This record gives sequence, C-alpha cells and structure tokens, in this order.
Amino acid sequence: MGQQLESQRRVPPFRVERFKQRFDAFSEIGRSASGAMNRPFGSPADLEARAWLVRLAEEAGFEVYFDAVANLWGVRPGQVDGPAIVLGSHHDSVPDGGRFDGPLGVLMAIEVIQSLQEAGYQNALPLSFVSFTAEEPNPFDLSTLGSRTVAGRLTEDQLNAAADWNGRPLWEALTAAGGGRDRLAEVRKSRDDIAAFLELHIEQGRRLESAQIPIGVVSGICGIYRETVTVAGEANHAGTTQLPDRRDALLATSEMLLAIEQKLQAADNPELIATVGRLTVTPNAANIIPGECQWILEIRGGDMAEVYGFRDACMQVFADIAARRGVTFRRDLMLDQQPQPMSDEVIQALQQAASALHLPYMNLASMAGHDATHIASFTRAGMVFVPSLGGKSHCKEEASRMEDIEQAFYVLAAATMALDTAIATEEGYRHGDR
Amino acid sequence: MGQQLESQRRVPPFRVERFKQRFDAFSEIGRSASGAMNRPFGSPADLEARAWLVRLAEEAGFEVYFDAVANLWGVRPGQVDGPAIVLGSHHDSVPDGGRFDGPLGVLMAIEVIQSLQEAGYQNALPLSFVSFTAEEPNPFDLSTLGSRTVAGRLTEDQLNAAADWNGRPLWEALTAAGGGRDRLAEVRKSRDDIAAFLELHIEQGRRLESAQIPIGVVSGICGIYRETVTVAGEANHAGTTQLPDRRDALLATSEMLLAIEQKLQAADNPELIATVGRLTVTPNAANIIPGECQWILEIRGGDMAEVYGFRDACMQVFADIAARRGVTFRRDLMLDQQPQPMSDEVIQALQQAASALHLPYMNLASMAGHDATHIASFTRAGMVFVPSLGGKSHCKEEASRMEDIEQAFYVLAAATMALDTAIATEEGYRHGDR
Repeated sequence: MGQQLESQRRVPPFRVERFKQRFDAFSEIGRSASGAMNRPFGSPADLEARAWLVRLAEEAGFEVYFDAVANLWGVRPGQVDGPAIVLGSHHDSVPDGGRFDGPLGVLMAIEVIQSLQEAGYQNALPLSFVSFTAEEPNPFDLSTLGSRTVAGRLTEDQLNAAADWNGRPLWEALTAAGGGRDRLAEVRKSRDDIAAFLELHIEQGRRLESAQIPIGVVSGICGIYRETVTVAGEANHAGTTQLPDRRDALLATSEMLLAIEQKLQAADNPELIATVGRLTVTPNAANIIPGECQWILEIRGGDMAEVYGFRDACMQVFADIAARRGVTFRRDLMLDQQPQPMSDEVIQALQQAASALHLPYMNLASMAGHDATHIASFTRAGMVFVPSLGGKSHCKEEASRMEDIEQAFYVLAAATMALDTAIATEEGYRHGDR
Repeated sequence: MGQQLESQRRVPPFRVERFKQRFDAFSEIGRSASGAMNRPFGSPADLEARAWLVRLAEEAGFEVYFDAVANLWGVRPGQVDGPAIVLGSHHDSVPDGGRFDGPLGVLMAIEVIQSLQEAGYQNALPLSFVSFTAEEPNPFDLSTLGSRTVAGRLTEDQLNAAADWNGRPLWEALTAAGGGRDRLAEVRKSRDDIAAFLELHIEQGRRLESAQIPIGVVSGICGIYRETVTVAGEANHAGTTQLPDRRDALLATSEMLLAIEQKLQAADNPELIATVGRLTVTPNAANIIPGECQWILEIRGGDMAEVYGFRDACMQVFADIAARRGVTFRRDLMLDQQPQPMSDEVIQALQQAASALHLPYMNLASMAGHDATHIASFTRAGMVFVPSLGGKSHCKEEASRMEDIEQAFYVLAAATMALDTAIATEEGYRHGDR
C-alpha cells in the first residue's frame, strides 16, 4: 500500500464550530416561538430549508439537483464512474417537533463529504448527500415519500392520486418544492446508482443513553403492524341510563388499553412495543354515553412472530372484555410492514470504524421507521444512531450532545472511506477508470 | 257540590286512535331513512314541525302565537282571567334521536286540553299548551333556550351574542322559526302568567320498566356537575420510547375512567351517576404516545352533597394515578347546576290523580334536565314520566307503550282539573269572574 493510499485512510478532523454554526442556522427555519420545529413537507419552512440547503451545498462544491419527487441530491464525482456512496436523511419535521430528527443526518452527510474532500481524500466512487422529501407524516398521508419513490415502492398512480386535506394535488406541492412530474421516469434508483447508503439519525429512545454508549449501529428496522379497532357499545343518555344498562364503548376501550400495557410489562422485551396513539369517541358529547370508540393499535418489533403473537394475545383479552361488557369490536388491518435488516457489509464497516477509533458501540434494532428502510430494499444500507437526551423526540426538547455527534462523524467518515475502497475494488472499478 | 261540578270532575276518555295518528304523522317530520329523528332547532324539519303544530292547534280551537324566542303557545281561555295552567314540552330532537323525547309531551298537552274541552269541562283558569324552542343541544350552544328565556335565565346579551358554528346569528334562526326580537320585552313569564306547568316526558331510563310501573311522578330534577379534566403526560415516539420512559396521558386517563366506574358501582345509588362522554387525545397520531388527554367528567345527582363527595373521592384516586404515572392533571369547572325540586302542589295533584284512577306510580328524581327545571324556578311545575322501552333514548329505538301513554293522559287530565279548581279557589278567582 503506497503513501498516497495511507494518507487517504486518515480520518479527517471534525470541524465542530462550522458544523454547529450550520446546524444552529438551519434550526431557525421553521422554528416557532415556543422553540418547537414546524417544518412539514410543503410548508413555507420546508421550501426555505430547501433553498438554504441548495446554497450551502453549492458553496461546498456539490453538483446539486432535485429529482421528480423533490428529493435533493448533491454529488461529488469520484475517480471512477460507478455507483455512488450516498449519505443522507430528511429535513422535514413533525408538527411541534425537534431540530435533530432528520436535519442532523442531512447536515452530517454534507459535512462528512466536504471534510473528506478538504482533507484531500480521493474518492473512487462518487459521494452524494441526499435529503429525502416528506419522511414525516404530512397532509398528503404519505410518509417516507421520497425514499419510497426512489425504491419503487410508491407507484405513479399513488403519487397521481394523492392530495392534501384541502384537495391540493401532491404534484403541485412536489413541483413547488423543486420536483416535476416530467422527470418521474428517472426517479427510481437501483444498486447501479447507489452502491451504499448511510444514514445518521438520533436514536429517539434511551437505550444508548442508559448504557452510556455514544454510537448505535443499527442491525435492522423493526416491523410495524397497525390495525384499527372499533369498539361498538350503545350511545345512551348520560343521566338516565343506570350503570348495569350501560354499554360504554370508552370504558371497554379503557380496559383494553390497560390490558395491552400489562401484557407489554409481562413481555419485558426492549424490541417489542405497542401503542394506542390515536383514538376517537362517537358521538363525543358530555351528556351521551360513548356509543363507539375507534382507535389504532400499533405494534412494533424486530421479529414479526413476536408481533403477531402479541397481537393475538391482546385479541383474546379484548374478546373477554367485550363479552363481559356487552360490546362488540371490529378489526381492520392498516399496515403489516415487515422488519428490514440493514446490510451486513455496511454494519461491518461501521463496527470496524468504531473499533478502529476505540469507540464503544451498541448493536440495536431501530424501533422507528426511516428512509433507510426503503433504500435497504434495493442496495446496501446502514444507520448510525447517536443518543437522544432523555430519549425525547418529536418534541422541542429533542436533543443530542455534540460530543456524541462528533464521534458519529468519525465513524461515518471512516466507514465511507472503507466502503468506497471495498466496493470499488469488489465491483472491479479501479482508480483512474473515469 | 252541584251536578255541573260533578260532571266537570269526570276524566274525559282518551281518543287513542286520534292521538296515535297525530303522533305518527308528526314523527315523519325530520325522520331520516335510518328511522332516526333529525329535527334540531333551526333545521327545515324544525320549521316544518312548527307549521304542522300551528295547523293542528288552530284546528283544535287554540289561540296560537309565537313569543320572541319562538316558543309556540296555544291558549284556551278560562272562565276567569287569571294565570294559565300550562302543559307542554319541546318538539326538537338530538341528532339521530328518537320520536318521543319532546313531541310526546307537546302532542299530549294539546290532546289533554282538547279532550277536556270536548268533554264539556269548563276550565276556570286559561289552559295552554307550549312547545319550547331548542330544548336539545343545538348549533347555537344554548339548550333549553326557550324555557330559560321565559324564566329570565338567559339574558338579552346572551341571546344577542349567540351565533352558530358558521356565524349565523341566533336571532336570524329565531326569527325564521316565528320569533322576533321586537317582542323580547314580553317574553318573560311569572307566576301571574303561569299558575302551574305540567310536562309529560319519557323516562329515558329503566327504573319504571324494571318496576313495571306505568307512571313516574317526578320529585325533582337532578343537579348536574361538569368539569373538564386535562391530563398532561409527554408526547413521544411510539417506537423508540420504552415502557418505563412513557408518560402516556391516555393510559392514565383509562385508569381514571375505570376508577370512576368502580366508585359508582360501590355507591350503588340510582340517583347518582357519572359519565365521561367527551374525550380528545393530543396529538392523536398512531405513532405518537398521547401527550395530552382532555375529557369532561359529568356527575348527576338528586343531592349535591353526594355529587361533590363523589367528585372529591374521584380526585383523590386521580391524584394517586397521576403521581404513579408521572402525569399531571388540571381541572376546569364547566357547570355546577343545583337540583330543582318540583312543586309539592303539583306532585300531590299527580299522586292523587293516579291514586284515584287506581294506577300504580313511582316517585323518582329526573336524572335528565328538562324545560320544567327552568319553569319550576318561578312557578308550580311538575312532571310525569312514562316508561322507556329498554331505557333507550336519544336513538331511533326510543319508544314507549301506548298503554302507558294512555294512563299518563288520565293522570294529566285529572291533575289539570284538580289544579285548575284548587288554584282558582286558592287565589280567589271565581267562575264567572271573567
């Protein structure tokens, strides 16, 4: 191995002040008076964030473009004309969300590639960053829109049919954000376009913090199962209907929700969780006994057999509760999304990078969905987590320590270099092939 | 006692076929395809019902007029010019309600007065029927609007400020229904206008049906206490937040609701009931742990000391649940409506009428609010209940048996005659004073 290659393998320094300045400036876009981030897809803040990223990336020397669904890509050509190593995440937020979920991964992608360049690293494969469109829930009811489209998991018909709650067509919002229906034929990517994808994200939980470990190497992304449960009792007068005559759908539901929690406590499995986050009561009047209660049971797990087993155990208890209370319940499947393992090659590159830097890391499944889920369906993909303070996310208190972010920078930079070299070699590309 | 007076005291026959025909015809106005009644105040069905009632009452010989807030009055003059004996109820319905709640009392008021007249009864005091405006919840957020205005319990400012959810002023709807702001000075009634008020209503519960008793004599109308409870936990990611780190406002609420039910079961008091009929979750998304849950606790009882005691006992349990789950809760008083006793004179007249007719009756508190609550604040008022089949009300299954309704007719007719004679005598009016 010659001297040039040796210098190439040195991890560049993390320019922490530059990164903090960029992160703080970007965090102002869509930040409300309360301190929470409001940057949903299609909002003025989303559009402002896009313009800001384009300016930054162009100044940093990237070739920047938007694809059909307004994913923002920035490319640094390599020495060969092969598929790119891509780093990225998303820049949109949930309502009243935080500053880190998404933007951290986008700004870090730019930082890693720019720092490698500044340190004189001669990348074999092209290096790209990406900010995917509409990762979070949005008025068009299509989350991870950008990465799903790139992976061919959203059809043209689905995109054409989507509109927001006011009837605004999705394409109108995509076009305003930089996209364009005329480019739809080129939007889909394959392994020939993206050799590997690396996403830095906050953990959004407390497993890393509790273990005092700065780096999480994600083994895979959990499966998500959702069904709508509709409990039907009988609406009746709240004054005149005596207790034994009541068939209160909300009280039956209350028992069911507590039963779910009890079963979770008994399972005591960090990679199995269930939540009822959405619930509506009908007719929802102070003086009428709830006649119907509709809610979404969400179960997440690394192993779908455990998810289905948990679901079935819940349903048995629900049936008992319903029979005892004289109510019925109907189930409607909403989502049955299988777990998505991350690429072994990427996992190993991240683990080896951490080991070489003497950084402790934890292997863990992501209990949240991410853009990487969809990219992993067609190419090598992996994720790095940094600890979330107090496990908080999707709220204005969402935060991670800059010391941990710095370690993630080094791991990502080292893994990028390793994957660049390994894949270029493995795939038969050589320096100077371009 | 002369022969004339003897004949006067004979209760007229119930013309059941006529009554059924009227009741069935009136039930068609606002009845939807499902069979449910949709006749909220201000709706086309409400206006059609008013025109129908005016036609019926004029044909039956009443002098008909609408007051300022569109209460429909129909008068049969008496032999003296004193205050009237008034029978009535309301003709509007809840959304998807039943045919009996309200209209039964209005049509029976017309039937009793018309039948007394046909039987040659010479009333001393004027006899009137009334159908009060907007007894049920409506888009103007003012229920028992008509009776409250008559009782002076709604101010001119409140009426002037009221508008529906689309900004339509209340006065516009009242004017369309027959009312008029220019008549507002004369709307308020006193004991000098109404000597006694009798309202027939369905029980809306199962106490009469369970006891197999056709007649309920209402002792008073329960107090209603409502407060908004806002449970604040922490919104967080439904995938990444482990069970011990959750502060789920909906699960805390579920425990609270079940605690209310347990305490009610322990109290086992037919005149104390509590309900949570309205509940909203924030942010109400499938993948976010509920951060806030806001609901209305309603407690009804014949004795406010019991109501407050029950409330305080609930709050102690809520505090324990909140502390254990790391959530907080805020309380906001909405309503603290005291019980309204019915008039002893009217209660006795109804009881004596039932006894004289050898009809079993039950004394019971009304656990629902009624127009009689407000009329009782300024004059003699009383209510008769007939059994509700299965206790059902505010739904299309709402029904009562015609056999029971017939008994109520006799009790009301006899009590009307007794009150007419007693009050005319007591107050010093004599036949021929007019």
